Formats: sequence, structure tokens, C-alpha cells
Amino acid sequence: MKLQMALAAGVLAACASGVAAQAPSLSEILAKSPASDWRALDPNNTLYMEMPGGRVVIELSPDFSPRHVANVRALAHADYWDGAAIVRVQDDYVVQWSRAEGDQHDLGTAAARIAVPEYDRPVGDLPFTRLPDPDSYAPETGFTHGFPAGRDGHGRTWMLHCYGVVGVGRDNPPDNGNGTELYVVIGQSPRHLDRNVAMLGRVVQGMELLSSLRRGTAPMGFYRTPADRTPIRSIRLAADVPPEQRTDLEVLRTDSRTFKAVIESRRFRRESWFVRPTGHINVCNVPLPVRPVPHGG
Amino acid sequence: MKLQMALAAGVLAACASGVAAQAPSLSEILAKSPASDWRALDPNNTLYMEMPGGRVVIELSPDFSPRHVANVRALAHADYWDGAAIVRVQDDYVVQWSRAEGDQHDLGTAAARIAVPEYDRPVGDLPFTRLPDPDSYAPETGFTHGFPAGRDGHGRTWMLHCYGVVGVGRDNPPDNGNGTELYVVIGQSPRHLDRNVAMLGRVVQGMELLSSLRRGTAPMGFYRTPADRTPIRSIRLAADVPPEQRTDLEVLRTDSRTFKAVIESRRFRRESWFVRPTGHINVCNVPLPVRPVPHGG
Repeated sequence: MKLQMALAAGVLAACASGVAAQAPSLSEILAKSPASDWRALDPNNTLYMEMPGGRVVIELSPDFSPRHVANVRALAHADYWDGAAIVRVQDDYVVQWSRAEGDQHDLGTAAARIAVPEYDRPVGDLPFTRLPDPDSYAPETGFTHGFPAGRDGHGRTWMLHCYGVVGVGRDNPPDNGNGTELYVVIGQSPRHLDRNVAMLGRVVQGMELLSSLRRGTAPMGFYRTPADRTPIRSIRLAADVPPEQRTDLEVLRTDSRTFKAVIESRRFRRESWFVRPTGHINVCNVPLPVRPVPHGG
Repeated sequence: MKLQMALAAGVLAACASGVAAQAPSLSEILAKSPASDWRALDPNNTLYMEMPGGRVVIELSPDFSPRHVANVRALAHADYWDGAAIVRVQDDYVVQWSRAEGDQHDLGTAAARIAVPEYDRPVGDLPFTRLPDPDSYAPETGFTHGFPAGRDGHGRTWMLHCYGVVGVGRDNPPDNGNGTELYVVIGQSPRHLDRNVAMLGRVVQGMELLSSLRRGTAPMGFYRTPADRTPIRSIRLAADVPPEQRTDLEVLRTDSRTFKAVIESRRFRRESWFVRPTGHINVCNVPLPVRPVPHGG
């Protein structure tokens, strides 16, 4: 038994050092990444959600739900969420916000109803950085324009319910989510929701302002009383905000060489803490690096 | 295109109704489960962690780390964590607690060092309810005595880092985690830690008291100042607590027919909200039902 363990340890050490030579750490990879492997957030695809604790920054993905994204832009432009609130925080699941029931607000140019579900779409010419490891839910997983994505091998693609993604809440009729109620995933990725909801984008900064909210105690994590809710001051499209008030961030391009190196560094962890680097990764465990635009750009 | 969508919808509706006949909802399944499919928590394998917001209940798993579990029992018996605190909350990762650095406390009969890592173990005669879907990390996944478990097809098994599991913090030497520092997973399951840490058990009640704590802002989610920490009043073994002060819970046996029905009901969601039940599940997305012992036990 002892001999077997010693042998196993030897094999592991050999693997780890072999891996170390090819897989630098995440911070080393990012430190030497070329500027061209990053892209600044497009103000027309960026939402600022102003909370009591600070700003949550959301990147929108018109690739996956163009009609819903356009509607949410219009809602933000109409100040639709001024006075809205976090109404639901279900542990290991989602944070959700909306106006209070019966509290109407002008929709501006936004549609009250979107007839097209936008739960998935043709692959078309979208880029796809595919992961090598199996997934419990989708035949293929990877990344498209900075978002986790699945593919079915039959020409369809969709955004995945990973931690921090933003989805469009809806009731039972599959086409009634118009973007007025949105949710963010705050736990183990609820991938059974994939292809059942229009996906809007993902939180790129301020996630902890949502994930640390007190859990609701009514069914499905809704708050029992309005007093329990966390108010939302506003949600604005960055393009509608004066440039000097914007949060200038850039994200690592997921079709870049740097990102592919990030994936490998997370599949084979070389930090000395690890005795057994797994050599695998799940799509929802891949970090999507974000940083301030260099030089205040 | 419209025709194609209509056809697809027809196929989905057919699938959903076919599924409905064989897969009742989770609440229906639990409502008609026989009492023998549940087991009461063993007071000798249950920890009560008393927090300002209430009690967190942890079930220990001596199957996976007998030496570490025994040490944690001894530490609890010695009141080791009285005056300890949550020192680290890293978003989408872990909550961790310990005594403050340099704040010594009597270990009682607990060992200061455990020489055996206990990161995995022989399969032996442990029961295993195996899932049919692939996993990104482990050749086989399923459940053993109420805990998510992996198997490698070569006779080894280990507890998985799913949301809510409790692990034994350690520094770089792989054998130096003695149970004085423990952590709980609060985000997307960090499965790359599997087989790198001794696993102690899982939170069966009060998870929201940990997951909603304010995130630490120092590297790795540590709090910057002691004032930021959340104090822990105590951690006790249930067997050391007077019976009338215990939280009498029972958990669904994961080798029961009811649990197998739970798994199928979550693989094929029949609730009318779903337009496309996935037909798959990941081991960390399977609910592990807990309830008060009927009739005050």
C-alpha cells in the first residue's frame, strides 16, 4: 500500500512538472498578453445597474438574442428600472429584479411582447473556441464573443447558464419575456434552463453586489415583504451615460491565443498547492478575464 | 423556417407529454415516499455551527475522510471554534473559517497534524447510485450515503466539490490540513479541487447564512480587517448538545427508489414552464432532499 502510494506520488510529480513547462499560471499569461487580445466593452452593449452598494456592469450579447437585447436597450433608455428592486434571491440559483407588481412604467420604444423566443440560433459564422472535455448537458461547449456557448452538432448554438449570466425572466408562455424582468445566476450553473430562456449577457463587474444579497424566504426565494427588497437606483445603457461617468473595461477575446492559454492553464493547474491537476475543465469553470482599459483609455 | 419551428415544437410537446407520464414532479415524489427511504442524521456525524443569523447544520462523512472527521469531532468537543470567525468569502468559490492567526486554542484530544491525506479511498463495498450523463471531470459520478461522489473506474472514489460541500483547508504540504480551517463551496462547483483535499461533509441546512455573507476584498476573498469578519459563536457535535436543543433532520437515502425517481424528475422536467426538458443532469445539480424528522422525531 505504501509502495503503491509512493509510486502514485512519483507519477503525479512527474505529470505536474511536465505540465509546468507548458502551462504558465493565469497571472503570467495575462501579464504577457498582447493588447490586441483584448477588446473594450462597446457602450451600446453595456448596462450599468446602480445598486446601493455600487455599480454592476453587464455586457449584452446581441449575437444570442438580438430582439431581447434591443428591447432592454430601449427599456434602459426609457429609465424603466428607476425605482425597480431585487424581488427574488433564491440560494444556489438566481437573483431577479423587476418593478413591483402593478407598478406600471412607460416602456418608451420597447415592445411589451416579443414574439420570437430566441432560445437558440443558427451557428452561422459565429466564432467558437471549443473545449475538449465532455459536458453533462451539451454535445459541444465553448465560447463565442466572450460568452459561454453550447452547440448541438446540428447547426444550433445557445448561451449557457453559467454563474453570472443574465437571462430574461418569463412566465409559462414561451414568448412572453420582454426583458422587464431579468435574472442573474448566483450558484451552481442551472444548465437545465439552457434553450428554455432568452439569454441577455453576463455580469463582468460587481457580481458580488448581487450574489451576497440576503436570500428571500418565500417560495422560490421571493422576498416576503417589499421592505426586504434591495432597491435599484437605475439601469442605464453605457452609451446613454456621459463618457466621464462610464466604467471603462475590456475583456479578453475568447478567440485569442491568450484565452486558449488561459483554458490550458486552468485544465492543468501547476500551482504547487495542487497534488493532482485534473487535466479537465467545465465550460462554467473557465475564467473570463476583465480589466480596466489601460491608461484610463 | 416557421414550418420547421412548428414541427420542432410539436416534437417537443410530444416528448414532454411522454415524459410527464413517467416522471412526476419533485414534490409529488417526496410526498409519496416511504418513511424507510429516509434516514435521520446521526448526532455523532452532525455539526451545529452557530452564527449570528442562526444555525448551520453540517453532515459529516466518515466514509470519505475518517481521520479528519474524527479530528473535527475532537476539535468541536474541545470548543475549538468558540471565538473563531469567517475569515474569507471569495465570490463564486468558498467561505472559510478559522481562529485568527496566532490565536491559539486547546486542541483537546485532536491531532495537530494528520499524516494521511484522505483525498480519495478504495471503493470497497460503498453503495453508489450512478448517474447516466457524462461529467467534465470524473469518469463516473453519483452518490454514496448522501454525498456526491466520483469514481475512476480503477477502484478509487472521492467526494466531489459541489455547492455546499465542506472541505478541509490546507496549505501547500498535502498532509497539513487538520480540520481547524474548514471551507464551504458557495458558487459554481470548483471540481478541479477534487482529490486534492480531504472532504468533510456537506451543509444540510442554513447554507444561505454562509452564501450571502459579504465578499472579502483582499486577495482570495480574505477580509481586510478583523472587523469585517463574521463571528462564529460555536461549532458543536450534535451528540454533545442536549437532545432538546438539536435540529432533528432526516435526509433522503441516495440508494433508495425515491432518490432514483428524484434524479429522473430533474433530468426530464415536466413542469409546464419548460419547452425543452434537457434529459441530462450534472451530479452537482441533483437536489439532496432534507426534511424535519416527522412528528418531532
